[in-house]
Amino acid sequence: MISIDGSLDPSSLDELLAAFSGYESALMTNDLEALDRYFAPGPTTLRGDPSALLVGHDRISAFRGLRGGLPRRTITELHVRVVSPTAVLLVSVSVPVKGGSGLQTQLWQRMSRAASGSALGESTAGDWVITAAHVHGAAPALNGTIWRVVGNPLVPALPAVVAEGVLDPDGLPVTVPQPLTGMTVAVKDLYDVAGFAVGAGIPEFLAEAPVATVDAPAVAALRAAGAAVQGIAQTDEFAYSIAGRNVHYGTPPNAAVPGAIPGGSSSGPASAVALGQATIGLATDTAGSIRVPASYQGLWGIRTTHGAVSASGLWPLAPSFDTVGWLTRSAPALRAATAASLDRAPGAGFEPMPSPGGSAAASLAARFVVSADLTASCAPDVRAAFAALVADPVFAEVEQVELGSLDEVFAAFRTVQGAEAWRQDGAWIEAHPGVLAMDVAERFDIASEVTAQQESAARDVLAAARARFDEVLAGRILLLPSASSAAPALTASGEDIAVARSSTLRMTAVAGTGGYPAISAPLMTVPAPGGTAPVGLCFVGPRGTDLDLIDVAAAVAEALRS
Amino acid sequence: MISIDGSLDPSSLDELLAAFSGYESALMTNDLEALDRYFAPGPTTLRGDPSALLVGHDRISAFRGLRGGLPRRTITELHVRVVSPTAVLLVSVSVPVKGGSGLQTQLWQRMSRAASGSALGESTAGDWVITAAHVHGAAPALNGTIWRVVGNPLVPALPAVVAEGVLDPDGLPVTVPQPLTGMTVAVKDLYDVAGFAVGAGIPEFLAEAPVATVDAPAVAALRAAGAAVQGIAQTDEFAYSIAGRNVHYGTPPNAAVPGAIPGGSSSGPASAVALGQATIGLATDTAGSIRVPASYQGLWGIRTTHGAVSASGLWPLAPSFDTVGWLTRSAPALRAATAASLDRAPGAGFEPMPSPGGSAAASLAARFVVSADLTASCAPDVRAAFAALVADPVFAEVEQVELGSLDEVFAAFRTVQGAEAWRQDGAWIEAHPGVLAMDVAERFDIASEVTAQQESAARDVLAAARARFDEVLAGRILLLPSASSAAPALTASGEDIAVARSSTLRMTAVAGTGGYPAISAPLMTVPAPGGTAPVGLCFVGPRGTDLDLIDVAAAVAEALRS
Repeated sequence: MISIDGSLDPSSLDELLAAFSGYESALMTNDLEALDRYFAPGPTTLRGDPSALLVGHDRISAFRGLRGGLPRRTITELHVRVVSPTAVLLVSVSVPVKGGSGLQTQLWQRMSRAASGSALGESTAGDWVITAAHVHGAAPALNGTIWRVVGNPLVPALPAVVAEGVLDPDGLPVTVPQPLTGMTVAVKDLYDVAGFAVGAGIPEFLAEAPVATVDAPAVAALRAAGAAVQGIAQTDEFAYSIAGRNVHYGTPPNAAVPGAIPGGSSSGPASAVALGQATIGLATDTAGSIRVPASYQGLWGIRTTHGAVSASGLWPLAPSFDTVGWLTRSAPALRAATAASLDRAPGAGFEPMPSPGGSAAASLAARFVVSADLTASCAPDVRAAFAALVADPVFAEVEQVELGSLDEVFAAFRTVQGAEAWRQDGAWIEAHPGVLAMDVAERFDIASEVTAQQESAARDVLAAARARFDEVLAGRILLLPSASSAAPALTASGEDIAVARSSTLRMTAVAGTGGYPAISAPLMTVPAPGGTAPVGLCFVGPRGTDLDLIDVAAAVAEALRS
Repeated sequence: MISIDGSLDPSSLDELLAAFSGYESALMTNDLEALDRYFAPGPTTLRGDPSALLVGHDRISAFRGLRGGLPRRTITELHVRVVSPTAVLLVSVSVPVKGGSGLQTQLWQRMSRAASGSALGESTAGDWVITAAHVHGAAPALNGTIWRVVGNPLVPALPAVVAEGVLDPDGLPVTVPQPLTGMTVAVKDLYDVAGFAVGAGIPEFLAEAPVATVDAPAVAALRAAGAAVQGIAQTDEFAYSIAGRNVHYGTPPNAAVPGAIPGGSSSGPASAVALGQATIGLATDTAGSIRVPASYQGLWGIRTTHGAVSASGLWPLAPSFDTVGWLTRSAPALRAATAASLDRAPGAGFEPMPSPGGSAAASLAARFVVSADLTASCAPDVRAAFAALVADPVFAEVEQVELGSLDEVFAAFRTVQGAEAWRQDGAWIEAHPGVLAMDVAERFDIASEVTAQQESAARDVLAAARARFDEVLAGRILLLPSASSAAPALTASGEDIAVARSSTLRMTAVAGTGGYPAISAPLMTVPAPGGTAPVGLCFVGPRGTDLDLIDVAAAVAEALRS
């Protein structure tokens, strides 16, 4: 069905319709060269879909290079709206073979050869090219790169508790207000959710995993506080990566940086929260698995003090470093999730740090430190953004500190983490050869070779480092970038991603080694193709100061805004 | 962030940006009058979003009247693309309060007062109005009107079975090919799926329901044939409606007729299939719950011969009439689902009809009948479309038959259905006052008053009718519209929907009374605002001829296409 509004020279209309058909064919065959020619050159060409608005021919072209061809579809409606003799809006409805429907809105403009730089068609009046497009296909039931399972809700909040001895004016019982009422949670697929098995990012593991009969305490705490479980969200395999790529379920989108990896291992919860599909991502952070996706996607995130929230009912990666934490879009939501969980998780216990004077909150108020050695391995743009930020008057008293031997600490951290990870997952991995992605498999291979002597020596290094860090930091807040770079592109080489990983882990290992709480706040940006990309500012505080640390970070964010 | 490409008179640009802001404000406050003014009048104005493309100012205006206001959002990017002094494309990115992002592409054109018929602004050059828009908001985690829970997949297919005694050329075992491999199933929330409770469209019922430990046979059959369970899809409360509206979860979209009800009670499976979110809808049909949504949404659907597929593990509505069936987008998929289930469901058994001669398939080949009395209560457009269709040469020998006393049969059917429904659900309903929607509650109220004597008398009427139908139909295929009208609008009054219900149930009760298989094939359309709406052609055949009946319907569809 074609409907035409407005008049256009018939030969010009024929050429336009031929170009429309040609573009449609090029989409089906994924003819990248033709697709590039059908889109107007230059930096102002637009292409939007539900994942992103891309600005400029180069970004659009790069996107196509990644996508692969489109499934076959049929155009069932075409509306031609003539704007001028050289500009026509084409709005078309498409029906994919697998059902549903899509919609394409394209502004076609006739451009002179010189302007378009191409040589499509024979017309001397120039070629019809697309200068702006807005498209969407049939929506899937769920985004399986983000979610393993999702419900309406998947598991409701626990009922509100009746306040003992309190009655309303009519003499009726009153329920205790729940701080997380109306919020939804994306639970990383490492936590027990009653009625579901833990998949840890691996379908073969899921297929053999037992169904949990009770919620993990971290899940129960959020439900008791009024939040509903929206679904179970994807993770990197066994959480042993910070990239956010999963060979089984695909790579979740980075909502903040189109075409970039999302960061992991809490990739699914992070993308769910960034896209507004959940309020809170319940995640874990062993060596950066919350801080990195928070940084890459412009979210708030906290890894709590080691031991402050029970890690039971959680598939461990490396228990010496594993922590419970959350990802949110705002500081108040992060604080609410943290408060609900620190309060309620049974068995919470940690070794508090001696505060140099007064309460932890008071000691945190305005004492910040940085370490030049720590940020030395950052990408130059991140180092520059960080230097500019910490020079802001809001950080009145930023001191330089020497943490000492960071490379040695990182090596020791990796050794102990590897040894524990292998003890946890090695037997399953050996029984299921060929299941894990190559990079994760290699990491476990190396981990499998850690000797008891190496592990013990590494633990000694970490114990010494922890004592040294405690002494050097002396109750102050260490500031650093949450990751060494903005999110690498999906097209980045394995080598580039490995470098980003090492540079980042060298930084994140400080909190891991000290058992410190660490917050990533979305307070920096660096230039990126077509705009900017977020980088988190990381606040590392003394053990047990989790809520105070959130308050400090929130106050800093507020001060920077005004 | 604003980027402008092309040049526009500054005052004209100011007016345009003011109009853009004004439109944005009107969206937030849901100022319908202003929204109507900002959209160009006339039949060619376009507005598309992921649910539909609406053509013409009137349809766009009607849609807005139904929607309610938009959640507050912030415009974070605005790209101004000047096409001509009187036409500008505005592409804007919006960030809703709840996260994620949306995109709006609007073609604004300056229209003279006379043309636009409005009096916005002060410019003598005319007003800027939107002549075409394409928008999408942040995608939700799942469409909760369609799905209760959905996974990637929710439950995988059963592993393929190794073919006994068969080896490949390398001497390795070979698995039996599975006919439904790669297909996904939307299971109506009445069937047991191991690990999940049945909700029957009612959250309060779900909260108290036990978790199933084994799949219902109808679910198991599809999984054994290679299909994975995509999710559990919504139903009308206790399946006791054919409208497809659910007060708890909302009304699923009708993918074929924007702004119309989806049809029920298998509303979720139908919408999931129509939108391409599942290949097969596993549903039930007691009095039309498959045929009606199939008809309203242009799908293929079958209710099987009563008893031909086990209804165990299924929350009954009225066991004397309840049947298992499926909804698909194509006849081959419908046949595959049916064949897999008839073959495998244990305990399948039905009373086959004596065939007047030869095999059932042969007897079905070309013997069609219609009943003027049966179609008398149809809407005029449906009656006309049906009369035209059955006059097609493909139905060579269509005879008129007298089924007799259809109103009496319908009344008896309703009585027995009500009595059985109340026996099934009455206790729960009495224990949970105020939970059900008013129309469903009223239906159960009436059902609760059926006396044993009334029920017994009604059963006698049905038994006599069944014998009479068997005799009159004599092994032939009865053709009728699957529903008395196209899908009523969402805005239809309760009374109009009740009339559509009665008129439809009078027709669907024939298959229910006879225990006959009935197929709805998407072979008719009637005029609808902005296009056409589908109506199903229903094929009612002798008991036990399910697969043959699909073959006949598919052959008819094929012949009509060519």
